[in-house]
Amino acid sequence: DIVNTVDRLIGKAPDLKGRTILITAGPTREPLDPVRFISNHSSGKMGYALARQATLRGAQVVLISGPTNIEPPVGLYKFIPVETALEMEKAVLDNFNQAQVVIKAAAVADFRPKKYNLGKIKKQDGGMVIELVKNPDILQELGQKKQQQVLVGFAAETDEPEKNAVDKLKRKNLDFIVLNDITQEGAGFGSDTNIVKIIYRDGRIEVLPRMLKRDVADAILDRVLPYLN
Amino acid sequence: DIVNTVDRLIGKAPDLKGRTILITAGPTREPLDPVRFISNHSSGKMGYALARQATLRGAQVVLISGPTNIEPPVGLYKFIPVETALEMEKAVLDNFNQAQVVIKAAAVADFRPKKYNLGKIKKQDGGMVIELVKNPDILQELGQKKQQQVLVGFAAETDEPEKNAVDKLKRKNLDFIVLNDITQEGAGFGSDTNIVKIIYRDGRIEVLPRMLKRDVADAILDRVLPYLN
Repeated sequence: DIVNTVDRLIGKAPDLKGRTILITAGPTREPLDPVRFISNHSSGKMGYALARQATLRGAQVVLISGPTNIEPPVGLYKFIPVETALEMEKAVLDNFNQAQVVIKAAAVADFRPKKYNLGKIKKQDGGMVIELVKNPDILQELGQKKQQQVLVGFAAETDEPEKNAVDKLKRKNLDFIVLNDITQEGAGFGSDTNIVKIIYRDGRIEVLPRMLKRDVADAILDRVLPYLN
Repeated sequence: DIVNTVDRLIGKAPDLKGRTILITAGPTREPLDPVRFISNHSSGKMGYALARQATLRGAQVVLISGPTNIEPPVGLYKFIPVETALEMEKAVLDNFNQAQVVIKAAAVADFRPKKYNLGKIKKQDGGMVIELVKNPDILQELGQKKQQQVLVGFAAETDEPEKNAVDKLKRKNLDFIVLNDITQEGAGFGSDTNIVKIIYRDGRIEVLPRMLKRDVADAILDRVLPYLN
């Protein structure tokens, strides 16, 4: 009916009422010293759009976010700001059990500097080498721990995107994965729009048109619904 | 008189009218691949405050800025956004000759990755090593090229701050240097206030109290005036 349609259009059908959804967003920063860090171009827009739409649809949202310039949406259940992948891991694990849905939109650094310098590293002649060690793979840990949770991941790929996304979906035991082809204009980091494909465990690939990240968020939440009991 | 005092208080005495001031601000980002980069915690606030106050005081301001979240001040003569140290170098050199004053508030990365990967670097088992090469020292180049220009640098130090700042002042042929002790609360990166010392070529050290970055900007511009002919 008309009320439901309008509610739907403005993203307010309370179809996620009573659900706790854990969403991660933004980049992480992996410090070299008090001044320098390694990071990535994630703006956090996709994750914040998911948090906002899920909140509007009645969910109890826990948003765990790396450093971004976005105000957290109004009405969040919990907002947990973090800097590093290790902080992100702890916050996610602390909040995993209570969640029915986990959507990992954060771009967590795969590596961190092996050594953190307490003082600022001085400029020196010639080159320099930074040793990196692998960060924990949070999504993979969740895939192993998962009980009733619906687990959704993102992939941002430049090479063989579909193949890499399918590998990630299986390896990490996800329910579905959202693939960003970051080589396309109007997709991925920093943009207000996104072009995504959704890939399912049975191999089905759904291609969505270019949409506002808000609408991509609703499309993802729509696809979570059938997994909820 | 009262009008001058009020103008001064609101930062509008046109005492920099007819002068071209080149100001750099923000961090640089040194890319590893299309997604990842090395950067630093510079927010750009100090450089943007300098650009704003200099504009209010009548100067023709060229602001060259790494990525920040700040709107460029109204009334700039030129705004040149850059990402990397090499882009910053080119923009600064292109605009150096026309400037009477150069204030380098940017936190330019000392190093950049030796290799840029066109595709996203895939996660791999074990560690990883990044080779870095030295970026050009833009301030030192300017110190060598300088004719009539007043040249002001910044130092953000954690170890032996005064000694390191004096070394930098001399090595780079600056007129004076603004020392941020980033280990203090209410100073340096991201903060709206700053605590600085100004160090002159004759060895004089002037200690300023904690002030809004806007007021630190005016204090720096006040100290530039006597150098102008």
